[in-house]
Amino acid sequence: MDPATVIAGISIVTAGLTIAIGSIGPALAEGRTASQALQALAQQPDAASTITRTLFVSLAMIESTAIYCFVVSMILIFANPFTGG
Amino acid sequence: MDPATVIAGISIVTAGLTIAIGSIGPALAEGRTASQALQALAQQPDAASTITRTLFVSLAMIESTAIYCFVVSMILIFANPFTGG
Amino acid sequence: MDPATVIAGISIVTAGLTIAIGSIGPALAEGRTASQALQALAQQPDAASTITRTLFVSLAMIESTAIYCFVVSMILIFANPFTGG
Amino acid sequence: MDPATVIAGISIVTAGLTIAIGSIGPALAEGRTASQALQALAQQPDAASTITRTLFVSLAMIESTAIYCFVVSMILIFANPFTGG
Amino acid sequence: MDPATVIAGISIVTAGLTIAIGSIGPALAEGRTASQALQALAQQPDAASTITRTLFVSLAMIESTAIYCFVVSMILIFANPFTGG
Amino acid sequence: MDPATVIAGISIVTAGLTIAIGSIGPALAEGRTASQALQALAQQPDAASTITRTLFVSLAMIESTAIYCFVVSMILIFANPFTGG
Amino acid sequence: MDPATVIAGISIVTAGLTIAIGSIGPALAEGRTASQALQALAQQPDAASTITRTLFVSLAMIESTAIYCFVVSMILIFANPFTGG
Amino acid sequence: MDPATVIAGISIVTAGLTIAIGSIGPALAEGRTASQALQALAQQPDAASTITRTLFVSLAMIESTAIYCFVVSMILIFANPFTGG
Amino acid sequence: MDPATVIAGISIVTAGLTIAIGSIGPALAEGRTASQALQALAQQPDAASTITRTLFVSLAMIESTAIYCFVVSMILIFANPFTGG
Amino acid sequence: MDPATVIAGISIVTAGLTIAIGSIGPALAEGRTASQALQALAQQPDAASTITRTLFVSLAMIESTAIYCFVVSMILIFANPFTGG
Amino acid sequence: MDPATVIAGISIVTAGLTIAIGSIGPALAEGRTASQALQALAQQPDAASTITRTLFVSLAMIESTAIYCFVVSMILIFANPFTGG
Amino acid sequence: MDPATVIAGISIVTAGLTIAIGSIGPALAEGRTASQALQALAQQPDAASTITRTLFVSLAMIESTAIYCFVVSMILIFANPFTGG
Amino acid sequence: MDPATVIAGISIVTAGLTIAIGSIGPALAEGRTASQALQALAQQPDAASTITRTLFVSLAMIESTAIYCFVVSMILIFANPFTGG
Amino acid sequence: MDPATVIAGISIVTAGLTIAIGSIGPALAEGRTASQALQALAQQPDAASTITRTLFVSLAMIESTAIYCFVVSMILIFANPFTGG
Repeated sequence: MDPATVIAGISIVTAGLTIAIGSIGPALAEGRTASQALQALAQQPDAASTITRTLFVSLAMIESTAIYCFVVSMILIFANPFTGG
Repeated sequence: MDPATVIAGISIVTAGLTIAIGSIGPALAEGRTASQALQALAQQPDAASTITRTLFVSLAMIESTAIYCFVVSMILIFANPFTGG
Repeated sequence: MDPATVIAGISIVTAGLTIAIGSIGPALAEGRTASQALQALAQQPDAASTITRTLFVSLAMIESTAIYCFVVSMILIFANPFTGG
Repeated sequence: MDPATVIAGISIVTAGLTIAIGSIGPALAEGRTASQALQALAQQPDAASTITRTLFVSLAMIESTAIYCFVVSMILIFANPFTGG
Repeated sequence: MDPATVIAGISIVTAGLTIAIGSIGPALAEGRTASQALQALAQQPDAASTITRTLFVSLAMIESTAIYCFVVSMILIFANPFTGG
Repeated sequence: MDPATVIAGISIVTAGLTIAIGSIGPALAEGRTASQALQALAQQPDAASTITRTLFVSLAMIESTAIYCFVVSMILIFANPFTGG
Repeated sequence: MDPATVIAGISIVTAGLTIAIGSIGPALAEGRTASQALQALAQQPDAASTITRTLFVSLAMIESTAIYCFVVSMILIFANPFTGG
Repeated sequence: MDPATVIAGISIVTAGLTIAIGSIGPALAEGRTASQALQALAQQPDAASTITRTLFVSLAMIESTAIYCFVVSMILIFANPFTGG
Repeated sequence: MDPATVIAGISIVTAGLTIAIGSIGPALAEGRTASQALQALAQQPDAASTITRTLFVSLAMIESTAIYCFVVSMILIFANPFTGG
Repeated sequence: MDPATVIAGISIVTAGLTIAIGSIGPALAEGRTASQALQALAQQPDAASTITRTLFVSLAMIESTAIYCFVVSMILIFANPFTGG
Repeated sequence: MDPATVIAGISIVTAGLTIAIGSIGPALAEGRTASQALQALAQQPDAASTITRTLFVSLAMIESTAIYCFVVSMILIFANPFTGG
Repeated sequence: MDPATVIAGISIVTAGLTIAIGSIGPALAEGRTASQALQALAQQPDAASTITRTLFVSLAMIESTAIYCFVVSMILIFANPFTGG
Repeated sequence: MDPATVIAGISIVTAGLTIAIGSIGPALAEGRTASQALQALAQQPDAASTITRTLFVSLAMIESTAIYCFVVSMILIFANPFTGG
Repeated sequence: MDPATVIAGISIVTAGLTIAIGSIGPALAEGRTASQALQALAQQPDAASTITRTLFVSLAMIESTAIYCFVVSMILIFANPFTGG
């Protein structure tokens, strides 16, 4: 097989697996955090504003690791620096 | 095998596995969050509006990681930039 | 083997595995959510309508990730854009 | 090996594994839901009708993911669009 | 090897693995449901008829996923549509 | 190798693995059910007859999935429809 | 290698693995059941006869799945119907 | 390699793995049962004789599955019916 | 294949897997920490400032291990010292 | 390779793995049993003699499965009946 | 392939996997420690200074194992003593 | 490769893996036992002598399975009966 | 490939994996110990000095196993006795 | 490849894996033991001397299994009896 085909095939597999594997951790972590936030709301409704604010900051922080994976995945599909090689 | 066949075969496998593996994490996370929301509703019915709102925002955030995988999967099937190579 | 056979074989395997693996997460998540809804009903029968409504919305959201997998699986079997290649 | 044999062999393996793997998640989820329904019945006998109705709707929803797998499995055995190729 | 042997060998392996893997989930789920029914009986003997009825409906529903696997397994051994190919 | 040897070898391996893997789920499920029945007996001795009856029905239902595996295993060893091929 | 050697080798491996894998489930299940019986005896000494009787019936039922594996293992070593082939 | 060497090599590997894998389940199960017996003794010293008797019967029953594996292992080393082939 | 293709292919796979695997641990850890912070807020609203400060310092520390992986991943894609070899 | 080398190599690997894998189960089981015995001693110091006696009998029984593995391992190294073949 | 390519390829893979695998343990451990520190703060706000100090010392100690992996990873990419060979 | 090299290579790998795998079980078991002993000491300081004595006997018994592995490992390195073959 | 390349490649892979795998256990163990120390501080602030001293001794002991891995990893990279061979 | 290279390569891999795998069990076990000691100190500060002494003896005993692995690893690198072969 010619090199371009090899690079393309490897890029496709890697792009898919990166976002697939990389979405498991953040999804579970966000589920845990959101789940705990709901429990906290039910336990202490008066602190709703503090809880909600902390929840959103935390979700954004966790989402960032999923974004890393999505960025790498997009780079491999649309801006792959090796495809010219 | 000719390069087009190789790229097509790899794209099919990757598209399927990406959405298959990528749906496990979000599904479990949404299940956990929704499950906790129901428990919170039973425990504190008065805070139903706050709980429901927080639940939907959280579900949307978690669903986003599944959407990433679906997007990559669709790109690989219908808009694959390497199939021209 | 000719390319059409390769693509067909890969499509069959991928279609099956996609829906098989992709049904584990949603099924478990729906089981957890429904299980918690029943516990909530037993604990707070008065909030039955709110609980039932939240349950159905959540189940629909979780089912969506299984639908993604089923859609990809059907596309690979009946509307595969690569089989013409 | 001729293409028809390859497609037939792959279809058989995929059909079996799809329904085998695809029955684990729904079965466990139904077991969890039914188990919780029994606990709810023992805890709140007065809400039996609501609990039973919610249980059946939930079981049907979970069973749907198993049905998806069974449908794909049957399609691959009896209505395989690739066997003509 | 001639095609008939290949198809026969693959069918045997698939038939065995399908029922073997496919019996794990339903068995564990039935064990969980029955186990919970016994606990419910010990906790609320007065609701025995409701509990028993719900148990049997649930067991039948769970058993159905095992039946799916057994049906596919029997089809592959005794009514395999590919063995003529 | 001649086809008869291949079919025989595959049948032996499949027969063994089918009953080996297929006995894990039912055994654990029966252990769980019986274990819970003993706990129920210790907690509510007066309901012994109901508990025992439910236990035996449940054990029979769970044992059925093990029987499926044993049947397939015996068919593969002593009544294999492919050994004539 | 001649067919007899192949069949013999496969039979040996399968016989060993069948009883080895097949003993894990029943052993753990019996351990769980016996363990619970001892807890039940300590909690309700007056029901010793009922508990002991239920324990022995349950152990026999669980042991049966181990017996299935042992029977298949012995058949493969000493009464293998394929060794004549 | 001559057939005798193949059979000998396979027998050695199988004999070792059979007893190695086959000792995990019974050991853990005996540990659980004995552990629970000690807890029962500390909780209800007056029932020591019943507990001890039930413990020994249970340990013997569990040990039987390890014995099955040891028997198969010894047969494969010292009384292998295939080594003459 | 020429060396440049080999290095490029290996770099792509490694870059993807590094960030994919490397995001699981930090994501789960951040989820746990944030989840506990929400529980602490609900339990002791008066200590909100101390809790929030400790949370952010901890999240930054955990995020650092994800950053390590992202840095290695970016180096492999855009500043790979071996691609000149 | 000559047969003697093959048999020797296989025997070495099997001997090592047998005792290595075979020591996990008994070690964990003994740890659990001894751990529970210490808890029982702290809870009921008056029953020390009964607890200690039951502990030693149980440890001996569990150790027996490790002994089986050690015996098979020693036989394979020093008294291997196949090394003459 | 020439030796330099082999060494380069192996170094890339190893560098990526080292930091990827090596970040899982420390991340989870830091998450657990920080999570517990937050719980401790909510439980005993008066001991905040002692808790915070102990937390930072512990995080530094745990981070050190991640640093080891990062150092090895950097050495392999930028200061590899074998690339001259 | 000459037989001596094969035997030496296999012996090295086996010796290392035997002690590596064989140290997991005993280490965890000793950790559990010692951990429980410390809990027992904190709960019942008056029974310190009985607890300490039982702890040491148990640790010695558990250590014995690690010793088995170490003995086999040393035999394979320094007193291998097959290296003369 | 020449021997020096083989040894270099194997050394690189082993050095990376050794520190990567070897950092998981110590990191988790330190996390557990530190986490418990924080809980102990919150529960018994008066014993802070004893707890802190015991914590540091334990962390040092656990860190030692990570140091072993780091030492082996450094030896393989910078002081490999086999690279001259 | 010449035998010396093979032996050297195998020794390097085995030495690294032995200490890497062999450090997981002891590290976790020491973490558990030390963690429990801290809990015991917080619960019963008066028994600090007994707890500390028992902790150190236990840590030393557990560390011994890690030492076994380190010894085997060092022997394979610096005093390998097979490298002369």
